[in-house]
Amino acid sequence: MLKVSPLAPASFPDLPKVAGVRFATAAAGIKYKGRTDVMLAELIEGSAIAGVYTKSATRSAAVLDCQAKTGGAAAGKAAILVNSGNSNAFTGRNGIASVEAITKAAGVALGIDPARIFTSSTGVIGEPLPHDRIIDKLNELGANLNADGIGDAAKAILTTDTFPKGSFAVVDVDGTAVTISGIAKGSGMIAPDIATMLVYIFTDAKIAHASLQAMVSAFADRTFNCITVDSDTSTSDTVIVGATGASGADATHNAAFAAALEQVMLDLALLVVRDGEGATKFVEIQVSGAANDADAKTVGLAIANSPLVKTAIAGEDANWGRIVMAVGKSGAMADRDRLSIRFGDIVVAENGWRAPNYSEDATSAYMKQQELVIGVDLGIGAGKAKVWTCDLTHGYIDINADYRS
Amino acid sequence: MLKVSPLAPASFPDLPKVAGVRFATAAAGIKYKGRTDVMLAELIEGSAIAGVYTKSATRSAAVLDCQAKTGGAAAGKAAILVNSGNSNAFTGRNGIASVEAITKAAGVALGIDPARIFTSSTGVIGEPLPHDRIIDKLNELGANLNADGIGDAAKAILTTDTFPKGSFAVVDVDGTAVTISGIAKGSGMIAPDIATMLVYIFTDAKIAHASLQAMVSAFADRTFNCITVDSDTSTSDTVIVGATGASGADATHNAAFAAALEQVMLDLALLVVRDGEGATKFVEIQVSGAANDADAKTVGLAIANSPLVKTAIAGEDANWGRIVMAVGKSGAMADRDRLSIRFGDIVVAENGWRAPNYSEDATSAYMKQQELVIGVDLGIGAGKAKVWTCDLTHGYIDINADYRS
Repeated sequence: MLKVSPLAPASFPDLPKVAGVRFATAAAGIKYKGRTDVMLAELIEGSAIAGVYTKSATRSAAVLDCQAKTGGAAAGKAAILVNSGNSNAFTGRNGIASVEAITKAAGVALGIDPARIFTSSTGVIGEPLPHDRIIDKLNELGANLNADGIGDAAKAILTTDTFPKGSFAVVDVDGTAVTISGIAKGSGMIAPDIATMLVYIFTDAKIAHASLQAMVSAFADRTFNCITVDSDTSTSDTVIVGATGASGADATHNAAFAAALEQVMLDLALLVVRDGEGATKFVEIQVSGAANDADAKTVGLAIANSPLVKTAIAGEDANWGRIVMAVGKSGAMADRDRLSIRFGDIVVAENGWRAPNYSEDATSAYMKQQELVIGVDLGIGAGKAKVWTCDLTHGYIDINADYRS
Repeated sequence: MLKVSPLAPASFPDLPKVAGVRFATAAAGIKYKGRTDVMLAELIEGSAIAGVYTKSATRSAAVLDCQAKTGGAAAGKAAILVNSGNSNAFTGRNGIASVEAITKAAGVALGIDPARIFTSSTGVIGEPLPHDRIIDKLNELGANLNADGIGDAAKAILTTDTFPKGSFAVVDVDGTAVTISGIAKGSGMIAPDIATMLVYIFTDAKIAHASLQAMVSAFADRTFNCITVDSDTSTSDTVIVGATGASGADATHNAAFAAALEQVMLDLALLVVRDGEGATKFVEIQVSGAANDADAKTVGLAIANSPLVKTAIAGEDANWGRIVMAVGKSGAMADRDRLSIRFGDIVVAENGWRAPNYSEDATSAYMKQQELVIGVDLGIGAGKAKVWTCDLTHGYIDINADYRS
């Protein structure tokens, strides 16, 4: 196990139970030894399932299967079955056969229509998935389902992560307390779209599939699609949100529920950045004054993905010239002489040059902080965006120059 | 001085003199001590000057000035004046004033119309350029001009480069030997467009400006715009080609000359990759079977810019799954099941899966080579492209986490 990221939260949150969802985990030995590597979540009849998935042209068999199933009728129970250690991506016809074998066997073992069983696989690309090892654990998983298992589920889905990731909210919907609990995994191959690897969020709110899907798609654009560790997009990225309706509270048009769901999605997205491979600094990039919001996001991602910016941050070097470079290369509309840049509250550049009262000492002192804000105002329009990233360090090279062995 | 790149050629070539061009260098102490940091090239009356420049929205004052002058009347002598150590980029009105001061003073000292004086500056962004130090050396430079100085010129323009870069060709144009000699600098912040920092090529061919410009623009797309070290685009990137006409041979419609010029441009582009910051592997990416050439280049650059691909290469890990990932995220048209991937002559993946006779041992042995070829066939159309890059190593982090100090 890798050393826990210095940016990790102090502890895993005590995620509240979500009425209508049960969890189980197992150690199937797919790749890892001595740890759990399969997790099952079972949702009660009538649960709505929404999802957003990687746009990769080489997406995995499991992702293609989930996409085909998302939006289907909400009749009967539903299940989410996830393995770590092997992504079953680029495994050709065998990959499709593995997904079919798993969902068919799970349907029998759990008494759930395979059309309502969503699978994910994460880990190495291109290795055949030993799906029999998962199938062999289905009865054990079914027997062990319990409402308290989400914390264990968060651990079973990890790969190169250094800590499990969870977030929750409890929100009042027309006088009823509605719960949202979510887990995520991901630390490398993280970039839009979708900017994380695997995310599962559960709520006991009652909400029609179409409304839930619209919310999840919109919020993903402001959360998971605004984070980047290394600009690389996984073949397996998946965000699934399941709403059981067990609270009886209808959240379809409830603003507080929508805000809470987006906050949980943002929390999980930022936890992924905090576990960025080799990360030692957490960076929020605030872009304003762009011609439009899309340009602002383009500029933010150009900065967040620049190896030169990310290495400067690693070196605690207030090298704002590299921010100028990244703005310039982004392709967004920009005017060198209207651009201003700040590190935290310190204005370092404005009017096409470094700020008149620029202090190298003050800025260098700021760069030593573990959590940084880089502000860029393009001075052109009202477009704005926030993007989150981490630094690029020797740790990233260590982890990725020898991931498979 | 950094350790010389392991990918460097054994020696700097003995660049032939180009009739009509003279060089001089000086140590102006702009930033570096104990080395030359200014180079002057003087071209005889009537020389045609063509150029391609960075498309960055935050390009430097010198680049803007060169762009305005390129294509101007070819009357009178011309000069190229370059300093290293300070890029005079993002220096606001002072940056423009510096370029004006330098070209005006050079005009007086050298007896050349300032409209024919092209300047470049390379180094740190955002620091005021101490242009008086350059101006103070103009008389010395003018007095020392000599036809043999191109090798010294190649050294004066270096920044984080670990070796000087030169290439040449001598080509028969209608019975006359025409010479092309070029120099380049660049090792980081290297990506399209333009994919190098500073390049100066000289020839004694006779060629009209419009023809020369058309050639240089077209060839840049297949050479400097097909290399990448870190996906970052400089604010100062410049390629200038000067044709003196002193050989008397008209190369306007000469295929051999065009081929030789493109070859010199390609040589210089690949030397920049060979000096990629921290590079230990030189990688040619050959993409074929794309829907069109543009898609092929998109796929090639997505692979070449992927930190996960580049770190796998650094680790000598035949991790072709990351190639699949990069193809998938590129945005180019791709079909997972038609894709094939090879490392050198070893087919590692085809028909949507790893090749049936894939040998991890054979592929791992191949990855230990210093020069690698990654082949990707998309199996869709006839589009193809070649892209060149290097690996991403601890050396890159070392160099860039503390460049300014």
